Amino acid sequence: MSKRNLVAEPQQHSIIGTRFFNAPRELVFKVMSDPATIPQWWGPRNLTTTVDKMEPQSGGSWRYLVSDQKGNEFAFRGVYHSIEAPLRTISTYEWEALAGHVSLETTIFEESEGGTKVTTISVFQSIEDRDGMMQSGMEEGGDEAMDRLEELLAKLQ
Amino acid sequence: MSKRNLVAEPQQHSIIGTRFFNAPRELVFKVMSDPATIPQWWGPRNLTTTVDKMEPQSGGSWRYLVSDQKGNEFAFRGVYHSIEAPLRTISTYEWEALAGHVSLETTIFEESEGGTKVTTISVFQSIEDRDGMMQSGMEEGGDEAMDRLEELLAKLQ
Repeated sequence: MSKRNLVAEPQQHSIIGTRFFNAPRELVFKVMSDPATIPQWWGPRNLTTTVDKMEPQSGGSWRYLVSDQKGNEFAFRGVYHSIEAPLRTISTYEWEALAGHVSLETTIFEESEGGTKVTTISVFQSIEDRDGMMQSGMEEGGDEAMDRLEELLAKLQ
Repeated sequence: MSKRNLVAEPQQHSIIGTRFFNAPRELVFKVMSDPATIPQWWGPRNLTTTVDKMEPQSGGSWRYLVSDQKGNEFAFRGVYHSIEAPLRTISTYEWEALAGHVSLETTIFEESEGGTKVTTISVFQSIEDRDGMMQSGMEEGGDEAMDRLEELLAKLQ
């Protein structure tokens, strides 16, 4: 398994993604939880991500700003329910343009085959919201983010 | 509609509850968001709820302790994604005995027929977790909590 496997069953609230990284779990967890490294992988390559706020602890908040080359800016935010390094994070996710439409994001880090398997479980308030997310281009953008993360992890070892 | 209507479709991640209260929206919202009134309605009648922590604002945390007459204690906790008085709250929910199993709770307050319609949307990380919640007695306990809330709202008007 080198690329992300994404499962979004019809008529369900969830999207489940899995991806293997050839890097130690502690490092994968750290890079995904560190404000300093978020801009280097979060989002597709043609957009620029900046961290407006990121407090990776239970009750902390996060807010990222993503801009394109035309100067359009998109804001995403949420709160952390729990951060259990290096095993699991649980947080909420909202695109501010669709305020009130929120998903719950669970990320699980498992040691696997000398590297790390990362599983993300996203559940939405409705099946319509889940389908909207799938149609938004998140699949391609998410795959690209995972590729960037893989490249970054390779550089850091 | 005087009692709660609960919808949990087979093979789905969600539980959707609706209940009408014969009270103004501001009052219903306030009573459901105030640490001082939580112990008066949250949970079934034969248990005692105390508020360990409740910070009803984005990024705030909540934690309730529920005890029975034998002295057994159960702890529940979560974080608030957003609080928009008197319209909507979005938060996370976890029973500490099942740590890591978390749901996203959306509560919507609508003016309706001279009173307030409260809709709760709970989405779980898996269908199994949703089914486990349904089998835990939450339906009966939740109905009783809503009855207690109705009685409290009647007293406060």
